[in-house]
Amino acid sequence: MKTKFVTVGIRVKDLPTSIRFYTQLLNMKIVGRGKLKETRGEWVELTSENTGFTLELNYYEKNSPYYVEYQLGEALDHLTFKVDDLDKAFEEAKLSGYPMIDEHKSGTSRWVYVEDPNGI
Amino acid sequence: MKTKFVTVGIRVKDLPTSIRFYTQLLNMKIVGRGKLKETRGEWVELTSENTGFTLELNYYEKNSPYYVEYQLGEALDHLTFKVDDLDKAFEEAKLSGYPMIDEHKSGTSRWVYVEDPNGI
Repeated sequence: MKTKFVTVGIRVKDLPTSIRFYTQLLNMKIVGRGKLKETRGEWVELTSENTGFTLELNYYEKNSPYYVEYQLGEALDHLTFKVDDLDKAFEEAKLSGYPMIDEHKSGTSRWVYVEDPNGI
Repeated sequence: MKTKFVTVGIRVKDLPTSIRFYTQLLNMKIVGRGKLKETRGEWVELTSENTGFTLELNYYEKNSPYYVEYQLGEALDHLTFKVDDLDKAFEEAKLSGYPMIDEHKSGTSRWVYVEDPNGI
């Protein structure tokens, strides 16, 4: 089938903390939000640089049929954000309380890993 | 900091099965792949409709320092793929062995959920 990959939805433990992380530190913009009565869930949709692809933060109330105690698990390995100045970026992350937890280099590429408020 | 959200990386239990699911059923294209000696990891990068955003399949050998027994967890709620004909799409998924596990409607939108080979 023909498909267009448009969104990744992550579960968040707490919406305000995650919104701050993705909008204030990573500079994403909120492009939508809402609540679904049937799931007792709340979602916030974010994008960066108008690529069209969105990150959706999903939060379920404790009385939601979709609520389960948050376990990080392995399904989500990482989310990648390109930055112009990596050293400056992880210094800024560190000052915001999100220190570098891992680093890789390969050829001319460098990756620095920080954990979001959900342990991602 | 200015960022561009470019990739979501998921952990897969088995590369060939996941590659088949994302390329044959969801029609994504492989745009890169490689192995990292230092992590004993293998990755395959996929895209759909040249949006620039990629899905990265990450596989770690059992002797990799990053290997852990796969637990699905809650961090990754869902990946969203837009299709032209939803009924046809989930019939095709069902025939490929991936039946619908949930469904939602809201306004003029409809979502059908299927599980990938990793339980995502």
